[in-house]
Amino acid sequence: MRATVLHSPGDIRLDTLTDPDLVDDTDAVVRVVATCVCGSDLWPYRGANPVPEPQQIGHEFVGVVERVGTAVADVTIGDFVIAPFTYSDNTCALCLKGVHTSCVNGGGYAGCQCELVRVPFADGTLVTVPGEVDEAMLPHLLTLSDVFPTGHHAAVSAGVTAGSTVAVVGDGAVGLSAVLAAKRLGAATIVAMSRHEPRQELARRFGADHVVVERGAEGAAVVEEILGGIGADAVLECVGTNESMKQAFRTVRPGGRVGYVGLPHGVTPNIPVMFYSNRNLAGGVAPVRAYLDDLLPDVLSGAVTPGDVFDLTLPLDQVARGYQAMDERTAIKAFLTL
Amino acid sequence: MRATVLHSPGDIRLDTLTDPDLVDDTDAVVRVVATCVCGSDLWPYRGANPVPEPQQIGHEFVGVVERVGTAVADVTIGDFVIAPFTYSDNTCALCLKGVHTSCVNGGGYAGCQCELVRVPFADGTLVTVPGEVDEAMLPHLLTLSDVFPTGHHAAVSAGVTAGSTVAVVGDGAVGLSAVLAAKRLGAATIVAMSRHEPRQELARRFGADHVVVERGAEGAAVVEEILGGIGADAVLECVGTNESMKQAFRTVRPGGRVGYVGLPHGVTPNIPVMFYSNRNLAGGVAPVRAYLDDLLPDVLSGAVTPGDVFDLTLPLDQVARGYQAMDERTAIKAFLTL
Repeated sequence: MRATVLHSPGDIRLDTLTDPDLVDDTDAVVRVVATCVCGSDLWPYRGANPVPEPQQIGHEFVGVVERVGTAVADVTIGDFVIAPFTYSDNTCALCLKGVHTSCVNGGGYAGCQCELVRVPFADGTLVTVPGEVDEAMLPHLLTLSDVFPTGHHAAVSAGVTAGSTVAVVGDGAVGLSAVLAAKRLGAATIVAMSRHEPRQELARRFGADHVVVERGAEGAAVVEEILGGIGADAVLECVGTNESMKQAFRTVRPGGRVGYVGLPHGVTPNIPVMFYSNRNLAGGVAPVRAYLDDLLPDVLSGAVTPGDVFDLTLPLDQVARGYQAMDERTAIKAFLTL
Repeated sequence: MRATVLHSPGDIRLDTLTDPDLVDDTDAVVRVVATCVCGSDLWPYRGANPVPEPQQIGHEFVGVVERVGTAVADVTIGDFVIAPFTYSDNTCALCLKGVHTSCVNGGGYAGCQCELVRVPFADGTLVTVPGEVDEAMLPHLLTLSDVFPTGHHAAVSAGVTAGSTVAVVGDGAVGLSAVLAAKRLGAATIVAMSRHEPRQELARRFGADHVVVERGAEGAAVVEEILGGIGADAVLECVGTNESMKQAFRTVRPGGRVGYVGLPHGVTPNIPVMFYSNRNLAGGVAPVRAYLDDLLPDVLSGAVTPGDVFDLTLPLDQVARGYQAMDERTAIKAFLTL
């Protein structure tokens, strides 16, 4: 099969690899219909994470079930499925608590910017989309494998409920998804911190009431002014750098909560400041599977259109262009068709 | 008046100071009826916090209102009052959010292990106890100025609700209060981590179902075994050292929350581990005033007896003995009478 391989930082190639096969009887093999590039794929692409040897890459996809193991009962050959970016058995004590990313049998795929993916624990992992899937719905469904539930996780972790005041740090696809998720959860006021015109526009379309271009203490002061003198109840940190985390803690009010979903790189929160002001920190890698039953109906009904984060569509064999565009921030998120 | 002064680490004296006076028209002066020594008083006593010059000390007290400023309306001379350990106006945007410790007009007292205390923003700060106050009720009421609401804050911050599994790190007065608070909130199972016989006994009396003496990875493993294979939904960190915080994060399950109320000293949480396992951190200095309307009735009815944490009663002029006993851990908490 054709498969995207990161050979070394900056060197993305579409190689030919052996097709994956069923290994355990709880596996499925899924033929990828659409996949995409994640902001977290850029960490190794940029060399911020080591790349000791060539590795398959990608973890967001939707597709059609091609083969199933003998113990697979709920997923059927021919099903159109959403694959959360980690697999999980959906039966262990931690899955039952909604932390599927910590499933005792869980893990990540070999990669998915390719034609075929082996999915362990297919019944526990894959969510079948009922009925025919319209092509126009593909981008929206694809976001359910990671980016939209990740934005949702930022909002849920930060405690966003009806009436919350919210600020979002980061205007990548996750940050924009977090705006959409906060709006969907009933936030009263949403401030998007963004300096990029097309992203500002999408943030507004997704529900941001205000866009703040200032950063640092000045940015926090502008948010405070907008929110009537105190910081936001909830700040959604969607980047993962120490600078963005500092921005988040500057922007959240005392007693408020930062929900963080950006893979942390060198993040060192100031514990005494957090302690004396009761500013809290919650979040982490999003347990996508836990949220799909809640989010899928709103995507299918068109109540939310999270696939609007894709502003570049490429065939899989131009995957390297997708990485380049996201690295250079000329694209928010690259959608790859097969 | 007689007032406790910390002259230098380890040097506690009862000095004679000028009586405090009303300064602002929103002030009250309260005659102290009972006060006590806090675990956090031990930080400067032990020299862990600097003591550049002699300073009055203490922040927990109950007493009778002796004088009020002209703008004080709700508190009356003769009222028996509980003083939260910080003062607050109870009207600013942050007080209205329940974060009285971040009140824009808030602050701490000059000290309260003494005879008279000036209380700024008396109406916003002091809570009047209705009716006659029985002497036997004094210790329980006194805990409402800090230690019991602080334990409660650990539990609330960690998200303890009916059915939660809870572990408590720290068997000082705050840790024991946290056990009581978790029980009151309906925790299904409470594990107290304690190695000290009399504290273990009080923990059980306050609602601990299990006592674990092991620490470190071994202690976390014992808690997991008790709780059926995964860590606690909520861990209440009631010490404030890096070691106790590490214990807390080892003991909380993925997706769970550490509620911390011990003044942090050199605490450096492992952010990547927190992120990948969705272990969250919430809490801080307890906004006592926010909780008193909820907690006071249960104290007055005898539904909870938080004053049982006091195992040493001394007259104020023996305050130095109280510090010594708590420092040497021969007393859990020293109650001082006037």
